[in-house]
Amino acid sequence: MTNPVVVEAMRGDRIESTHRGAGAVVDADGRIVMVFGDVERAVYPRSAVKALQALPLVESGTADRMGLTEKEIALACASHSGGDDHVATARAILAKAGRDERVLECGVHWPLGEAEARALARSGGTPNALHNNCSGKHAGFVCLSCAMSVEPKGYVAPDHPVQREVAAAIAAATGARLSEEMRGVDGCAIPTYAVPLIALAQGFARFGTGAGLSPGRRRAAARIRAAVAAHPLTVAGKGRFDTEVMTLLGDCVFTKGGAEGMACAALPAAGLGLAVKADDGGGRAAQVMIAALIRRFGGFGGETAARLQPFVSPRLLNWNGAEVGRLRPAGPLA
Amino acid sequence: MTNPVVVEAMRGDRIESTHRGAGAVVDADGRIVMVFGDVERAVYPRSAVKALQALPLVESGTADRMGLTEKEIALACASHSGGDDHVATARAILAKAGRDERVLECGVHWPLGEAEARALARSGGTPNALHNNCSGKHAGFVCLSCAMSVEPKGYVAPDHPVQREVAAAIAAATGARLSEEMRGVDGCAIPTYAVPLIALAQGFARFGTGAGLSPGRRRAAARIRAAVAAHPLTVAGKGRFDTEVMTLLGDCVFTKGGAEGMACAALPAAGLGLAVKADDGGGRAAQVMIAALIRRFGGFGGETAARLQPFVSPRLLNWNGAEVGRLRPAGPLA
Repeated sequence: MTNPVVVEAMRGDRIESTHRGAGAVVDADGRIVMVFGDVERAVYPRSAVKALQALPLVESGTADRMGLTEKEIALACASHSGGDDHVATARAILAKAGRDERVLECGVHWPLGEAEARALARSGGTPNALHNNCSGKHAGFVCLSCAMSVEPKGYVAPDHPVQREVAAAIAAATGARLSEEMRGVDGCAIPTYAVPLIALAQGFARFGTGAGLSPGRRRAAARIRAAVAAHPLTVAGKGRFDTEVMTLLGDCVFTKGGAEGMACAALPAAGLGLAVKADDGGGRAAQVMIAALIRRFGGFGGETAARLQPFVSPRLLNWNGAEVGRLRPAGPLA
Repeated sequence: MTNPVVVEAMRGDRIESTHRGAGAVVDADGRIVMVFGDVERAVYPRSAVKALQALPLVESGTADRMGLTEKEIALACASHSGGDDHVATARAILAKAGRDERVLECGVHWPLGEAEARALARSGGTPNALHNNCSGKHAGFVCLSCAMSVEPKGYVAPDHPVQREVAAAIAAATGARLSEEMRGVDGCAIPTYAVPLIALAQGFARFGTGAGLSPGRRRAAARIRAAVAAHPLTVAGKGRFDTEVMTLLGDCVFTKGGAEGMACAALPAAGLGLAVKADDGGGRAAQVMIAALIRRFGGFGGETAARLQPFVSPRLLNWNGAEVGRLRPAGPLA
């Protein structure tokens, strides 16, 4: 099936570009509230499931035994901008496992945040693995490995005990079978398993409400949600979608984007989980889609809904700051 | 009509994302060699027509009277990376008109090239309008304005004599009618007029061969093509698609990308013009599309065709440098 057009990029009054995509809004029992496009097709969730990947760290008691702070737990779910605070927090997590950045297997890249990259360059520095946007997640993996008395080396491999625990947490939340033929390699070298969007949405309904999770996982999910809600700058960075939306909405929403047009969200009060994917991998389209769904199903008052408008229909500016167009939800999201 | 899937992003053996799009390959008389998708729909060409926008500067004799070098002419067609040489060249163009960067109306942004942006930050600098990727084009507009004895102020407005000349050159090359209702504002504040892809392709066949252009425009087109072929680093920057493809192929091809998934190219020896647009605005898809068409219709030998493969099907690496996937042409381009 051909997915519908869900986001339009307008330049003036003319449609310049269109994004197709699919999305699902379901409750923890899998009851469908809204679906559009092919939600049964398995898609790589990429970083959109980092919060699920962090469940074993907390559920196992590792976070407590190592004394991880709330901010450090938030960084374990982050695609961070590579600012000084992100780097210091990742280093602190590793130190609690008695390790440093040399153990990280995520690879090195310049900070994801443009301002953060320029600040590092301005200081005369160069990036190391702590600047990788996934360094907090990887530091959490190292902690879990040490807590399991397993050598961290090779912790990114699918058959390493850490990745088996991580896959089990995703499988339990989503109900999906994470078989080898569904597996790809993520940008940070760990496995990413293709999961149907509708299963991802159900997984985030469970993550948001605890319903359908074991008591230990339920507590871990609540703790992770609280940590991210308290530290939205940690989970992404200044000016970034996830940070700004969660700063606006606090613990009323959990939202996390992933590469190639992925986004997942939880609306705990409404009991709903959301998952979207832009066919073409466009992050801007995923953000408009998830923002439109959050606004529609979040049960917010008029004032909060109005404050979501810049995320639902962001303005496109030219380099002089003049508005030359807009993104807008279309088709089933209009 | 729904455009076909033309590019697939593979992660391992699984399709992770897909891009739809349209494209046209025609000769200077408009004879169709290949079309796919809706090529009659008008699209904003954005920076893909910078070479056509530079025609009046050369054709009018302004470039000669002001003594513009070949490199300076190449920069007038550039979406440059904002490196030191780009900035110096833009400044030199303006100086030949007796002006400096204060006259530029393109706005200011950090260099488009990540390495160039970091280098500027490392030096303690901040960007000015010369770093704008369009500064060479705008400097050319300023030269043309001065040569026309018209005050440059407001040269970005559609009714300024410079923009009227620029629109006339695009209209003559493409045969399209550039009416007000087809007009949007580009990122650098000048008008961008929506033109059918098939007309853009014909315009680049004319640009590449001179056929169907007035003698003055024909000479200007040849001079611009020679300038860009001699200075491929000037027209974009190190590691960028247009620069690398033209470095590989020399004056056998002219190719230029634009924002929102646009690309146009000319294959002078084959007498063909090419124009593509990715529906979703994805630049990576436009590059794969135009590279696939250049390879198919360029008449290159086996060795050159093989060297185009990294552009036709670029590898996707994770942060450790391991290949995790590929882009590949699909559907009509497979």
